[in-house]
Amino acid sequence: MDFQPAIDKVFNHIKNNNDPGRVADYIPELAHVNPDKFGVHLTTIDDKHYATGDSEEKFSIQSIAKVLSLTLAYRIEDDNLWKRMGIEPSGTPFNSLVLLEHDKGIPRNPMINAGAIVVCDILMDLFSNPKKELITFIRSISGNQEIDYSPAVAQSEKTAGHRNASLIHLMKAFGNIQNDIDEVLDFYYYLCSIEMTCRELSRTFLFLADYGKCPYTKERVLTMSKSKRINAIMQLCGMYDEAGDFSFRTGLPGKSGVGGGIVAVYPDHYSIAVWSPRLNKKGNSYKGMKFLEKFTTETGTSIF
Amino acid sequence: MDFQPAIDKVFNHIKNNNDPGRVADYIPELAHVNPDKFGVHLTTIDDKHYATGDSEEKFSIQSIAKVLSLTLAYRIEDDNLWKRMGIEPSGTPFNSLVLLEHDKGIPRNPMINAGAIVVCDILMDLFSNPKKELITFIRSISGNQEIDYSPAVAQSEKTAGHRNASLIHLMKAFGNIQNDIDEVLDFYYYLCSIEMTCRELSRTFLFLADYGKCPYTKERVLTMSKSKRINAIMQLCGMYDEAGDFSFRTGLPGKSGVGGGIVAVYPDHYSIAVWSPRLNKKGNSYKGMKFLEKFTTETGTSIF
Amino acid sequence: MDFQPAIDKVFNHIKNNNDPGRVADYIPELAHVNPDKFGVHLTTIDDKHYATGDSEEKFSIQSIAKVLSLTLAYRIEDDNLWKRMGIEPSGTPFNSLVLLEHDKGIPRNPMINAGAIVVCDILMDLFSNPKKELITFIRSISGNQEIDYSPAVAQSEKTAGHRNASLIHLMKAFGNIQNDIDEVLDFYYYLCSIEMTCRELSRTFLFLADYGKCPYTKERVLTMSKSKRINAIMQLCGMYDEAGDFSFRTGLPGKSGVGGGIVAVYPDHYSIAVWSPRLNKKGNSYKGMKFLEKFTTETGTSIF
Amino acid sequence: MDFQPAIDKVFNHIKNNNDPGRVADYIPELAHVNPDKFGVHLTTIDDKHYATGDSEEKFSIQSIAKVLSLTLAYRIEDDNLWKRMGIEPSGTPFNSLVLLEHDKGIPRNPMINAGAIVVCDILMDLFSNPKKELITFIRSISGNQEIDYSPAVAQSEKTAGHRNASLIHLMKAFGNIQNDIDEVLDFYYYLCSIEMTCRELSRTFLFLADYGKCPYTKERVLTMSKSKRINAIMQLCGMYDEAGDFSFRTGLPGKSGVGGGIVAVYPDHYSIAVWSPRLNKKGNSYKGMKFLEKFTTETGTSIF
Repeated sequence: MDFQPAIDKVFNHIKNNNDPGRVADYIPELAHVNPDKFGVHLTTIDDKHYATGDSEEKFSIQSIAKVLSLTLAYRIEDDNLWKRMGIEPSGTPFNSLVLLEHDKGIPRNPMINAGAIVVCDILMDLFSNPKKELITFIRSISGNQEIDYSPAVAQSEKTAGHRNASLIHLMKAFGNIQNDIDEVLDFYYYLCSIEMTCRELSRTFLFLADYGKCPYTKERVLTMSKSKRINAIMQLCGMYDEAGDFSFRTGLPGKSGVGGGIVAVYPDHYSIAVWSPRLNKKGNSYKGMKFLEKFTTETGTSIF
Repeated sequence: MDFQPAIDKVFNHIKNNNDPGRVADYIPELAHVNPDKFGVHLTTIDDKHYATGDSEEKFSIQSIAKVLSLTLAYRIEDDNLWKRMGIEPSGTPFNSLVLLEHDKGIPRNPMINAGAIVVCDILMDLFSNPKKELITFIRSISGNQEIDYSPAVAQSEKTAGHRNASLIHLMKAFGNIQNDIDEVLDFYYYLCSIEMTCRELSRTFLFLADYGKCPYTKERVLTMSKSKRINAIMQLCGMYDEAGDFSFRTGLPGKSGVGGGIVAVYPDHYSIAVWSPRLNKKGNSYKGMKFLEKFTTETGTSIF
Repeated sequence: MDFQPAIDKVFNHIKNNNDPGRVADYIPELAHVNPDKFGVHLTTIDDKHYATGDSEEKFSIQSIAKVLSLTLAYRIEDDNLWKRMGIEPSGTPFNSLVLLEHDKGIPRNPMINAGAIVVCDILMDLFSNPKKELITFIRSISGNQEIDYSPAVAQSEKTAGHRNASLIHLMKAFGNIQNDIDEVLDFYYYLCSIEMTCRELSRTFLFLADYGKCPYTKERVLTMSKSKRINAIMQLCGMYDEAGDFSFRTGLPGKSGVGGGIVAVYPDHYSIAVWSPRLNKKGNSYKGMKFLEKFTTETGTSIF
Repeated sequence: MDFQPAIDKVFNHIKNNNDPGRVADYIPELAHVNPDKFGVHLTTIDDKHYATGDSEEKFSIQSIAKVLSLTLAYRIEDDNLWKRMGIEPSGTPFNSLVLLEHDKGIPRNPMINAGAIVVCDILMDLFSNPKKELITFIRSISGNQEIDYSPAVAQSEKTAGHRNASLIHLMKAFGNIQNDIDEVLDFYYYLCSIEMTCRELSRTFLFLADYGKCPYTKERVLTMSKSKRINAIMQLCGMYDEAGDFSFRTGLPGKSGVGGGIVAVYPDHYSIAVWSPRLNKKGNSYKGMKFLEKFTTETGTSIF
């Protein structure tokens, strides 16, 4: 299937929409980005590429990287992971600390901040140099040795990160953090400040469209069962408290970041990355959400 | 594909499992059922049938019927429905009243009790005889004029229904219920006490596997888009606070009821109904969950 | 001590204040009252009287009556009462249903609606005609056989009472209501619609200023210990989520109602009733709060 | 009035009670104390002294010191304080983080940890050397230059203080902390680790029984109005979620600490300190609560 016409049609339809969203500014470094950027890249499992707009420009993938750290931990730890966190949707951001206190320091899932911080804590137990292991892993599955993080963004996040510090101290109080708090947060902010282009992001997530097989190394990143389970987690927990709305409109598992990126996976077919920095009220890219809704409708590509 | 060998294999594997679950007893009438019942029926979109165990015995489908009342309301009201309720997972049962108060009487989704009660209220505005319209609709999409409800179960639910009365009064206080409270609850308990066999339940849900087309009348029950959206809602909200776990293990949209039934849909392929009355701690059929997990793994049939 | 000069001074100071408060209108019948009414009556334990303004006009004492039903139940049931409810402040109205669900149907204290409803349920177990017993008791301690309730207000409350219905059904679901729900609510709305003048209200509460002794019959209403405990409950729980602020500013145990009345007790000295229908955001009389703050400061009469 | 007979009678009655309480052990250093210690000291405003048991032994006054830091801040900042925190009871410990998130970083009152941390933050803005100012102030109002803190306890609290770190980071995220987090916590733990004997504690709080006047320097610590307001805050918020129960049973404003101390104030008469390290489930001294209940009943000394 040639996806280019649909990409172009939907992109042009949305490009000049009045965009009521706002660029994330609680992380000062993210506020500098040009809010009008808009790019799309789709990669099929047989390595066809369709793209438009600012698809070759780097942006901060932010929370999207949580799927990658989870993948790295899951392939080693298996279902032991779920002793440290759940796999249920969390309801609302309103609930973030509420639920964490109610659940005695066990995060609802690995996609919310608390859960992703626990995944970082687990990786620190597994590796003596977790940053290096993580970036090596990401470079490997993306087939791209140039992928890196932004020290300026990582620093900026740390300065603004009092809510995350509140979360990790609460989990430590409940005994669900093993390593030094500052070191775990340092690793977490490293993770959040990884940068990719739409092309790179789309390629990096292609293994989840191909049942766990890395399309570049041809090696298995995850078993088929685990790959499906990562998709299931994205479907239910990947879009904060807009997971239901995203599933309802788009019908694909996906993950967003406050940098304005969204990646979505159509198993057995493609992985697609969209980037537009202005966020809606739920913290997801306004144009990214619109694009994916219209694109999946236009192409009839949804898992439901 | 011949599903019978997989059904038999998994059924026999699980049948004699020690089942730690407990039959729902807060509805007195449900406590009378034989807890050892266990049946399965799978119907494909080309009308092939595979079954085993107590698949021809009637049981109370309970909350599974919420999908049918939602379908009836959705095809008339379109997306106006979502002014009265959300489409997001609710987090936990702990949150039932908490979230409803926080959200000023707007239920999180149509699969939790509060949301299903609002759907009943909407149907009462649409029809002068909503019970008759509902049962006629269900008989139509199931291709079975014999389907009915149990007056004894409906009465038993009403007697035990103080938590539902609490929910509806709270919504009424917030202005989200239009009709007489007792009449809405009466209709809601009618809905919950519909009875089907596994065969009937599997057939009734087949339209969601066939993109909205009724396999018996060949008429369209829902547009393709709406059919997909109902599946998305089931996926995210259909299993109470076990939706994540069910998606993770089974990889299909599904809906459970406290009568011990679960129905799941594999779009473009099949609809499957399982029944075993003993429930796990989250209120879902213990053996039903196990069966569907192993069956989808065995057959490699999952949307992810 | 001659309290008249202080009453006059503070009354005149506040009378013409711009009053940003609003008359309660969720109970339709209460919305008809003249919002500019303002009256004060103070009775000392040696039966001296000081008054000003609309002190001889009847108004709906509403939640103030909860202290009287509690007193009636407490002198019979002793500390068995506290198996059915707590004696702790409830935090916020936001929490009303939240805490009741968290505490499994046990209200925080007898001054919030849920607690007062449980007290009504208890009185219904104690008396075959609880309404008659209650009004007889109130007439006795007030030394006034004319005190009565307003059928119109009681009916109006019932119509508007969906939140109370939600509370009682939730408590019934947890097993903390013994009698028929409609009958308990009927009695509760009877209680809430009792009417008094400032003079009558002040006299009725005088037994709490005189360590439990009724100043008219000279009989003991409560033991000294129980009388002090009722005062302690008023101090901590009597002003909804403004209990801290009221204690802080006024320094007396007191109880308010949404009819605009507030009664406060200075043990060993006096009981004072103020009435002004416009309520502040917390649901307490705006001018009543102001008057009591300034009056207790002016006269140096506070328990702290 | 000679309080010695009542003190002896109640002390002897309770001394050998089976005490089901447990010494606080979440602060390791506190776990070392002899759990059977039990002392009482009462000081009247005319400097009469009545004591028994281990009343001359130092213990960690812990949260009791929050009243002293609040007093120091209140006399300088006046009612500006209440822009940074409330004066309402907080409901439950369960709610600690819940309410703080709901209230956007504004603690309910200055007696819960979050509020006391904000008071520390305020004192750091007021003084270049807040520790010295605080201890000088405390020595002054106690008439005792030897009062000091325990570095070992302060260090022990810091190590165990992840929940407090969670609270302060959350408040910082909401903009309600001005100073460096580690420095504020350092000062807070200094405050919490002040040590006194029952005699010293009773004398230190005597100004609150004498309407704000220091009985030793004869200087005014607080205005009469402010002194009464501190008492009101203690009454409503001083005993965590047992404030209602304490008021109900004891009828005096008081403050407890997890070191097992409780101080209570009978305005115009006396200040009393009790110490017994075993805590009940709410975190208040088991024997201390019992003693004060029986002592105030025995002597008829209560504000209600």
